Amino acid sequence: MVIRPNGYSIWERIQRDLDRRIKATGTRNAYFPLFIPESFLKKEAEHVEGFAPQCAVVTYAGAKVLEEKLVVRPTSETIINSMFAKWVQSYRDLPLLINQWANVVRWEMRTRLFLRTTEFLWQEGHTCHATHEEAEAEARLMLGVYSQFAEETLAMPVIAGIKSDSEKFAGALRTYSIEAMMQDKKALQSGTSHNLSTNFAKAFNTLFLDKDGKQKLVHQTSWGVSTRLIGAMIMTHSDDKGLVLPPKLAETHVVIVPIMADQAAKQGVLEVSDRLAADIRAAAAVLPYDAGVLVDKDDTKQPGWKFHEHELLGTPLRIELGPRDMAKNQAVVVRRDTGKKEFIPLERIPAHVVETLTAMQRDLLERARMFRDTNCFGVQSYEEFKKRIDEPGGFFMAPWCRSAACEARIKDDTKATIRCLPMDAAYEPLKEDGPCMVCGGGAGSCVRAIVARNY
Amino acid sequence: MVIRPNGYSIWERIQRDLDRRIKATGTRNAYFPLFIPESFLKKEAEHVEGFAPQCAVVTYAGAKVLEEKLVVRPTSETIINSMFAKWVQSYRDLPLLINQWANVVRWEMRTRLFLRTTEFLWQEGHTCHATHEEAEAEARLMLGVYSQFAEETLAMPVIAGIKSDSEKFAGALRTYSIEAMMQDKKALQSGTSHNLSTNFAKAFNTLFLDKDGKQKLVHQTSWGVSTRLIGAMIMTHSDDKGLVLPPKLAETHVVIVPIMADQAAKQGVLEVSDRLAADIRAAAAVLPYDAGVLVDKDDTKQPGWKFHEHELLGTPLRIELGPRDMAKNQAVVVRRDTGKKEFIPLERIPAHVVETLTAMQRDLLERARMFRDTNCFGVQSYEEFKKRIDEPGGFFMAPWCRSAACEARIKDDTKATIRCLPMDAAYEPLKEDGPCMVCGGGAGSCVRAIVARNY
Repeated sequence: MVIRPNGYSIWERIQRDLDRRIKATGTRNAYFPLFIPESFLKKEAEHVEGFAPQCAVVTYAGAKVLEEKLVVRPTSETIINSMFAKWVQSYRDLPLLINQWANVVRWEMRTRLFLRTTEFLWQEGHTCHATHEEAEAEARLMLGVYSQFAEETLAMPVIAGIKSDSEKFAGALRTYSIEAMMQDKKALQSGTSHNLSTNFAKAFNTLFLDKDGKQKLVHQTSWGVSTRLIGAMIMTHSDDKGLVLPPKLAETHVVIVPIMADQAAKQGVLEVSDRLAADIRAAAAVLPYDAGVLVDKDDTKQPGWKFHEHELLGTPLRIELGPRDMAKNQAVVVRRDTGKKEFIPLERIPAHVVETLTAMQRDLLERARMFRDTNCFGVQSYEEFKKRIDEPGGFFMAPWCRSAACEARIKDDTKATIRCLPMDAAYEPLKEDGPCMVCGGGAGSCVRAIVARNY
Repeated sequence: MVIRPNGYSIWERIQRDLDRRIKATGTRNAYFPLFIPESFLKKEAEHVEGFAPQCAVVTYAGAKVLEEKLVVRPTSETIINSMFAKWVQSYRDLPLLINQWANVVRWEMRTRLFLRTTEFLWQEGHTCHATHEEAEAEARLMLGVYSQFAEETLAMPVIAGIKSDSEKFAGALRTYSIEAMMQDKKALQSGTSHNLSTNFAKAFNTLFLDKDGKQKLVHQTSWGVSTRLIGAMIMTHSDDKGLVLPPKLAETHVVIVPIMADQAAKQGVLEVSDRLAADIRAAAAVLPYDAGVLVDKDDTKQPGWKFHEHELLGTPLRIELGPRDMAKNQAVVVRRDTGKKEFIPLERIPAHVVETLTAMQRDLLERARMFRDTNCFGVQSYEEFKKRIDEPGGFFMAPWCRSAACEARIKDDTKATIRCLPMDAAYEPLKEDGPCMVCGGGAGSCVRAIVARNY
């Protein structure tokens, strides 16, 4: 995967916003090695079993065969624990809250741009705590940070829940995830947060001297989101004309397209365009991001070509300004998401731009939320589910007895999977009265599962 | 190399500042793959010869032996050209100005923290131009960006020059570098900018259709700086007490240490400390960076311990505030770089902090420049040079006939190397009248070389 500048600028905005949120929880950034000695990866049994089939392995370097093979990190729990075991000595060193922005590699048979690529960029948080309760609180806190970030910045509504045992992270006690619905009604796992319990601490002997004078294992978490979020955002908002970008992720927010029928009109239109751009920039200082305003003066392209180009690029607002509009002291303002065209008096435009960008950020979230909610269905009968998963499709909330057999049967029969178990205020799975949708058993002890096809 | 949070926060500040400067030249960020197919690396003969001995190689992945080995990028000219060859079609696509922030791997026999590590973090710029002149101008422009950045942000004076043929980048026509003098008088190469001519364009067939209707090879540059800059900055400014940080790279700029002789005084001192911190933060809004102000309230540590700790960490300013000072409506302010202590009236402190941080950024550069200039010597005689390279050491400016034999002899005899050739306004090596310091030949056609031991 090559990320070209327009895509990378989205990632830079994701990073800047999320990095601020992560730091606000007291977490600090650090950097750990790309290469993990193979023996490290093998120390935690479930972990190596889960990741070994996906690893890329360096066997020679510096023109020599290596004594110990080096795995290109698929995730960094093991290399980080090899350091944490040295850094953590006392309860005074806890909590230890570390985040890393890095590339990771997981060998994939079938890749899909942004969603499933052999190499991807992400952040991975790794924390150590004195107690189970504190680690659990951290895993939940970061799940909340991801949920808020997805909604406030990506304008992407998400369902937070618990992963089933078969879907949890290799080495975790419990995995939480946020799940989003794409426009084809498939689910996309958009971020995960794990309570690792003492599993890696045991493997690496990550111990601390507690206040009571006893050596204890630390309780850990890890959590991450990746460049997959770019794909999630694209598939949530975009349309057949191209990209639709939430304003918080745009680099250019407003393109002014001067319409110059002849040379005589040209200078006047360009002057007004430049002045308008300056006025918009000044008004946009109230926005929580730097608003980019471009006057597209390219002589070699027609206005119609520019309209299409900026629809493709996802520029949130287009302003068309020609001599006839100027004579009426107005311009045409077009919203990328709704396509709505309005004639706005020139002196009103800067304030109108600020209002409309703010509205667009909010409206994109609301529209996506309505779409998601419209396509979430409660279902009790397996026959009904099997019929409806193809058409109309969507997220199906069904009672599940928590048996792996029923989970596997859903997947075999329909290729849909249990995405997560929605939670109550205590972060426990919501209970369902009815019997399991699949086996008809477990009445009274079932939980609610969200079942959907997924990426 | 593991970069812990205090070190990584320096890198984050380097990135933020330099990224802004790079973008101001019209360059945009992108991201290219970590793994380079071995055949790509082999396409440019000098390049592969230079880098092959340092490569780490992935031979199996996804539990299968790979058909083609993958090299972990030591630098990205080849993988990037494989894409540029597709992206560049016409003169309208030029100049193409791309930068990447990434990790790279160069297998090292002897590593040295921050300076020479198997994996390091860097930015690498890669550009395509229509003509030799434009590529040359870009290489010089970025050399200037690096020089300014080193001086303005790292407070580190540098000498910009041309590398000798034996030291230039594998695959380049010409390499420029900036060289800094560390406190042990050794040189540290701190950044390079290469005019690659059409060498990689030929290897990858990176062609464009020019205005005259002809297909032509693009002229390219590449340029980079790395986490080595953290080491350079440390070795330029720090002392036996620990880190000395230019304020532009600090996370915490001011630590207020409340001195609480007894419980009775405690509350009053803490209240005044907090108010002072708030006043400093408000006053520091005029600075070109976010100033961090910490009131160190830790009850378990003595003030003396805190003084040493913050000297070690490089906190630029320390304020000591106790009941006796409060009674006089003053506090002690201590500069980390000079150790100078001043009693300052409380109401003057916020303005004093702003003035002192500004002065410190400037003074650190000036002190380093004086040190460097005091240890730069002109030398004509090889015997004299050989004596003085050990004691007093420094940078020696000597006439050189440009022969590889004389360059090699210097290295064999003294372990010193030609760091670079200082340039005139036309970016050509400065001429020297005298004969070559080593062989005594080439009188009238010698250039000035800077000779020094180096990291």
